[in-house]
Amino acid sequence: MKLGRLNHVGVATPSIEQSLELYRTMFNAEPHGPAFDLPAQGVRVCFVDTPNSQIELIEPLGDHSPVAKFLEKNPLGGQHHMCFEVPDIQIAKAEFEANGARVLGEARIGAHGTLVFFVHPKDMGGVLTEIMETPKAAN
Amino acid sequence: MKLGRLNHVGVATPSIEQSLELYRTMFNAEPHGPAFDLPAQGVRVCFVDTPNSQIELIEPLGDHSPVAKFLEKNPLGGQHHMCFEVPDIQIAKAEFEANGARVLGEARIGAHGTLVFFVHPKDMGGVLTEIMETPKAAN
Repeated sequence: MKLGRLNHVGVATPSIEQSLELYRTMFNAEPHGPAFDLPAQGVRVCFVDTPNSQIELIEPLGDHSPVAKFLEKNPLGGQHHMCFEVPDIQIAKAEFEANGARVLGEARIGAHGTLVFFVHPKDMGGVLTEIMETPKAAN
Repeated sequence: MKLGRLNHVGVATPSIEQSLELYRTMFNAEPHGPAFDLPAQGVRVCFVDTPNSQIELIEPLGDHSPVAKFLEKNPLGGQHHMCFEVPDIQIAKAEFEANGARVLGEARIGAHGTLVFFVHPKDMGGVLTEIMETPKAAN
Protein backbone atom coordinates (compact mmCIF):
# COMPACT_ATOMS: atom_id res chain seq x y z
CA MET A 1 0.00 0.00 0.00
CA LYS A 2 1.31 3.44 -0.92
CA LEU A 3 0.68 6.56 1.14
CA GLY A 4 -2.47 7.97 -0.42
CA ARG A 5 -3.95 11.45 -0.72
CA LEU A 6 -4.31 13.43 2.47
CA ASN A 7 -8.08 13.62 2.14
CA HIS A 8 -8.51 15.87 5.14
CA VAL A 9 -7.24 16.96 8.53
CA GLY A 10 -9.84 16.54 11.25
CA VAL A 11 -10.02 19.55 13.56
CA ALA A 12 -12.09 19.25 16.72
CA THR A 13 -14.03 22.31 17.83
CA PRO A 14 -16.53 23.11 20.57
CA SER A 15 -18.58 24.95 17.92
CA ILE A 16 -18.58 24.48 14.16
CA GLU A 17 -20.33 27.82 13.84
CA GLN A 18 -17.56 29.62 15.71
CA SER A 19 -14.90 27.82 13.70
CA LEU A 20 -16.57 28.76 10.43
CA GLU A 21 -16.64 32.35 11.58
CA LEU A 22 -12.92 32.10 12.31
CA TYR A 23 -12.13 30.60 8.89
CA ARG A 24 -14.29 33.26 7.27
CA THR A 25 -12.46 36.06 9.08
CA MET A 26 -8.93 34.76 8.81
CA PHE A 27 -9.03 32.98 5.44
CA ASN A 28 -12.10 34.29 3.63
CA ALA A 29 -13.15 30.63 3.51
CA GLU A 30 -16.68 29.30 3.21
CA PRO A 31 -17.79 25.76 4.10
CA HIS A 32 -17.92 23.17 1.31
CA GLY A 33 -21.55 22.55 2.30
CA PRO A 34 -23.76 22.64 5.38
CA ALA A 35 -22.74 20.86 8.58
CA PHE A 36 -24.31 17.44 9.09
CA ASP A 37 -24.63 14.84 11.84
CA LEU A 38 -22.88 11.48 11.87
CA PRO A 39 -24.83 9.91 14.77
CA ALA A 40 -23.05 6.55 14.50
CA GLN A 41 -19.76 8.32 15.19
CA GLY A 42 -21.15 10.77 17.74
CA VAL A 43 -20.05 13.83 15.80
CA ARG A 44 -21.37 16.70 13.74
CA VAL A 45 -19.03 17.65 10.87
CA CYS A 46 -18.49 20.36 8.29
CA PHE A 47 -15.85 20.50 5.57
CA VAL A 48 -13.84 23.51 4.46
CA ASP A 49 -11.95 23.19 1.16
CA THR A 50 -8.34 24.09 0.60
CA PRO A 51 -7.18 23.99 -3.04
CA ASN A 52 -5.63 20.55 -2.52
CA SER A 53 -7.33 19.02 0.53
CA GLN A 54 -9.97 19.66 3.17
CA ILE A 55 -10.35 20.58 6.82
CA GLU A 56 -13.02 18.54 8.59
CA LEU A 57 -14.46 20.51 11.49
CA ILE A 58 -15.76 18.08 14.13
CA GLU A 59 -18.13 19.00 16.95
CA PRO A 60 -19.33 16.56 19.63
CA LEU A 61 -22.81 15.11 19.07
CA GLY A 62 -24.53 13.65 22.13
CA ASP A 63 -23.25 12.96 25.62
CA HIS A 64 -20.89 10.15 24.70
CA SER A 65 -19.12 11.69 21.75
CA PRO A 66 -15.54 10.44 21.34
CA VAL A 67 -14.57 14.07 20.68
CA ALA A 68 -15.78 15.24 24.10
CA LYS A 69 -12.71 13.86 25.88
CA PHE A 70 -10.42 15.55 23.35
CA LEU A 71 -12.15 18.88 24.03
CA GLU A 72 -11.82 18.40 27.78
CA LYS A 73 -8.05 18.36 27.27
CA ASN A 74 -8.14 20.99 24.50
CA PRO A 75 -11.06 23.33 25.24
CA LEU A 76 -10.38 25.55 22.22
CA GLY A 77 -10.22 22.54 19.90
CA GLY A 78 -7.27 21.42 17.83
CA GLN A 79 -5.92 18.92 15.33
CA HIS A 80 -7.71 15.64 15.97
CA HIS A 81 -6.82 13.20 13.16
CA MET A 82 -5.40 12.86 9.65
CA CYS A 83 -7.27 10.98 6.92
CA PHE A 84 -5.49 9.24 4.05
CA GLU A 85 -7.15 7.63 1.03
CA VAL A 86 -6.71 4.04 -0.10
CA PRO A 87 -8.11 2.30 -3.19
CA ASP A 88 -9.55 -0.68 -1.25
CA ILE A 89 -10.55 -0.42 2.39
CA GLN A 90 -10.53 -4.14 3.21
CA ILE A 91 -7.08 -4.69 1.74
CA ALA A 92 -5.83 -1.68 3.70
CA LYS A 93 -7.40 -2.96 6.93
CA ALA A 94 -5.75 -6.36 6.49
CA GLU A 95 -2.39 -4.73 5.83
CA PHE A 96 -2.54 -2.47 8.89
CA GLU A 97 -3.51 -5.44 11.05
CA ALA A 98 -0.75 -7.59 9.53
CA ASN A 99 1.70 -4.80 10.44
CA GLY A 100 0.55 -4.95 14.06
CA ALA A 101 -1.53 -1.75 14.10
CA ARG A 102 -4.72 -1.72 16.12
CA VAL A 103 -7.69 -0.94 13.89
CA LEU A 104 -10.50 0.57 15.98
CA GLY A 105 -13.60 -1.47 15.16
CA GLU A 106 -14.87 -2.43 11.74
CA ALA A 107 -14.82 -0.33 8.59
CA ARG A 108 -17.91 1.84 8.45
CA ILE A 109 -19.43 4.57 6.29
CA GLY A 110 -17.63 7.87 6.83
CA ALA A 111 -18.39 11.51 6.18
CA HIS A 112 -17.72 11.20 2.43
CA GLY A 113 -20.02 8.18 2.02
CA THR A 114 -17.26 5.61 1.58
CA LEU A 115 -15.91 3.07 4.04
CA VAL A 116 -13.41 4.27 6.64
CA PHE A 117 -11.63 2.92 9.68
CA PHE A 118 -9.43 4.46 12.35
CA VAL A 119 -6.03 3.25 13.51
CA HIS A 120 -4.99 3.65 17.15
CA PRO A 121 -2.73 6.69 17.66
CA LYS A 122 -0.36 4.64 19.82
CA ASP A 123 0.49 2.59 16.76
CA MET A 124 0.81 5.65 14.49
CA GLY A 125 3.29 7.93 16.23
CA GLY A 126 0.60 9.59 18.33
CA VAL A 127 -1.56 10.49 15.34
CA LEU A 128 -5.14 9.20 15.26
CA THR A 129 -5.24 8.04 11.64
CA GLU A 130 -8.33 7.61 9.49
CA ILE A 131 -8.10 5.45 6.40
CA MET A 132 -10.77 6.11 3.79
CA GLU A 133 -11.65 4.39 0.56
CA THR A 134 -11.36 6.91 -2.28
CA PRO A 135 -14.80 7.96 -3.54
CA LYS A 136 -15.33 6.42 -6.98
CA ALA A 137 -16.40 9.73 -8.50
CA ALA A 138 -13.03 11.21 -7.52
CA ASN A 139 -11.01 8.64 -9.47
CA MET B 1 -6.77 36.44 1.41
CA LYS B 2 -8.17 33.07 0.35
CA LEU B 3 -7.44 29.82 2.16
CA GLY B 4 -4.37 28.53 0.33
CA ARG B 5 -2.91 25.09 -0.29
CA LEU B 6 -2.37 22.91 2.74
CA ASN B 7 1.38 22.75 2.18
CA HIS B 8 1.98 20.30 5.00
CA VAL B 9 0.88 18.96 8.35
CA GLY B 10 3.61 19.21 10.97
CA VAL B 11 3.92 16.04 13.07
CA ALA B 12 6.16 16.13 16.12
CA THR B 13 8.15 13.01 16.89
CA PRO B 14 10.81 12.04 19.43
CA SER B 15 12.71 10.40 16.56
CA ILE B 16 12.50 11.12 12.84
CA GLU B 17 14.23 7.80 12.19
CA GLN B 18 11.56 5.88 14.09
CA SER B 19 8.80 7.81 12.37
CA LEU B 20 10.28 7.10 8.95
CA GLU B 21 10.42 3.42 9.85
CA LEU B 22 6.74 3.61 10.81
CA TYR B 23 5.76 5.34 7.55
CA ARG B 24 7.82 2.80 5.61
CA THR B 25 6.10 -0.11 7.33
CA MET B 26 2.56 1.20 7.35
CA PHE B 27 2.47 3.19 4.10
CA ASN B 28 5.44 2.02 2.03
CA ALA B 29 6.49 5.68 2.11
CA GLU B 30 10.01 7.05 1.71
CA PRO B 31 11.16 10.51 2.78
CA HIS B 32 11.14 13.29 0.19
CA GLY B 33 14.82 13.85 1.00
CA PRO B 34 17.19 13.55 3.94
CA ALA B 35 16.36 15.11 7.30
CA PHE B 36 17.96 18.49 7.96
CA ASP B 37 18.43 20.91 10.86
CA LEU B 38 16.69 24.26 11.21
CA PRO B 39 18.78 25.62 14.10
CA ALA B 40 16.99 28.99 14.14
CA GLN B 41 13.73 27.17 14.89
CA GLY B 42 15.26 24.56 17.19
CA VAL B 43 14.05 21.62 15.12
CA ARG B 44 15.26 18.91 12.80
CA VAL B 45 12.77 18.16 10.02
CA CYS B 46 12.09 15.62 7.30
CA PHE B 47 9.30 15.66 4.72
CA VAL B 48 7.23 12.73 3.51
CA ASP B 49 5.15 13.26 0.36
CA THR B 50 1.52 12.40 -0.06
CA PRO B 51 0.16 12.74 -3.62
CA ASN B 52 -1.35 16.14 -2.79
CA SER B 53 0.51 17.45 0.27
CA GLN B 54 3.31 16.64 2.69
CA ILE B 55 3.89 15.48 6.25
CA GLU B 56 6.66 17.41 8.02
CA LEU B 57 8.25 15.25 10.69
CA ILE B 58 9.71 17.49 13.42
CA GLU B 59 12.21 16.40 16.03
CA PRO B 60 13.56 18.65 18.80
CA LEU B 61 17.00 20.16 18.13
CA GLY B 62 18.88 21.41 21.17
CA ASP B 63 17.79 21.84 24.77
CA HIS B 64 15.39 24.70 24.21
CA SER B 65 13.46 23.37 21.24
CA PRO B 66 9.87 24.62 21.12
CA VAL B 67 8.86 21.06 20.28
CA ALA B 68 10.25 19.66 23.54
CA LYS B 69 7.29 20.88 25.58
CA PHE B 70 4.86 19.37 23.07
CA LEU B 71 6.63 16.02 23.41
CA GLU B 72 6.51 16.23 27.21
CA LYS B 73 2.73 16.28 26.91
CA ASN B 74 2.65 13.86 23.98
CA PRO B 75 5.62 11.49 24.38
CA LEU B 76 4.75 9.47 21.27
CA GLY B 77 4.47 12.61 19.16
CA GLY B 78 1.40 13.85 17.34
CA GLN B 79 -0.02 16.55 15.13
CA HIS B 80 1.77 19.81 15.88
CA HIS B 81 0.69 22.40 13.27
CA MET B 82 -0.89 22.96 9.86
CA CYS B 83 0.83 25.04 7.18
CA PHE B 84 -1.09 26.97 4.52
CA GLU B 85 0.39 28.78 1.55
CA VAL B 86 -0.11 32.45 0.69
CA PRO B 87 1.12 34.40 -2.36
CA ASP B 88 2.68 37.24 -0.29
CA ILE B 89 3.88 36.73 3.27
CA GLN B 90 3.91 40.40 4.33
CA ILE B 91 0.37 41.04 3.10
CA ALA B 92 -0.75 37.89 4.91
CA LYS B 93 0.99 38.96 8.12
CA ALA B 94 -0.67 42.37 8.00
CA GLU B 95 -4.08 40.78 7.42
CA PHE B 96 -3.76 38.34 10.30
CA GLU B 97 -2.68 41.14 12.62
CA ALA B 98 -5.49 43.38 11.41
CA ASN B 99 -7.89 40.54 12.25
CA GLY B 100 -6.54 40.44 15.79
CA ALA B 101 -4.49 37.26 15.51
CA ARG B 102 -1.18 37.10 17.34
CA VAL B 103 1.66 36.48 14.92
CA LEU B 104 4.56 34.84 16.73
CA GLY B 105 7.62 36.91 15.88
CA GLU B 106 8.70 38.09 12.47
CA ALA B 107 8.47 36.25 9.18
CA ARG B 108 11.57 34.08 8.71
CA ILE B 109 12.93 31.51 6.30
CA GLY B 110 11.16 28.18 6.73
CA ALA B 111 11.88 24.59 5.79
CA HIS B 112 11.00 25.14 2.13
CA GLY B 113 13.27 28.18 1.80
CA THR B 114 10.50 30.78 1.66
CA LEU B 115 9.30 33.14 4.37
CA VAL B 116 6.95 31.77 7.01
CA PHE B 117 5.34 32.90 10.23
CA PHE B 118 3.29 31.19 12.90
CA VAL B 119 -0.04 32.30 14.34
CA HIS B 120 -0.86 31.65 17.99
CA PRO B 121 -3.09 28.59 18.41
CA LYS B 122 -5.34 30.47 20.84
CA ASP B 123 -6.36 32.73 17.96
CA MET B 124 -6.80 29.83 15.52
CA GLY B 125 -9.20 27.43 17.25
CA GLY B 126 -6.40 25.63 19.07
CA VAL B 127 -4.41 24.95 15.90
CA LEU B 128 -0.84 26.25 15.71
CA THR B 129 -0.94 27.65 12.19
CA GLU B 130 2.03 28.23 9.92
CA ILE B 131 1.64 30.60 6.99
CA MET B 132 4.15 30.12 4.19
CA GLU B 133 4.85 32.06 1.04
CA THR B 134 4.40 29.73 -1.93
CA PRO B 135 7.76 28.77 -3.44
CA LYS B 136 8.07 30.52 -6.80
CA ALA B 137 9.08 27.32 -8.58
CA ALA B 138 5.78 25.74 -7.55
CA ASN B 139 3.64 28.43 -9.18
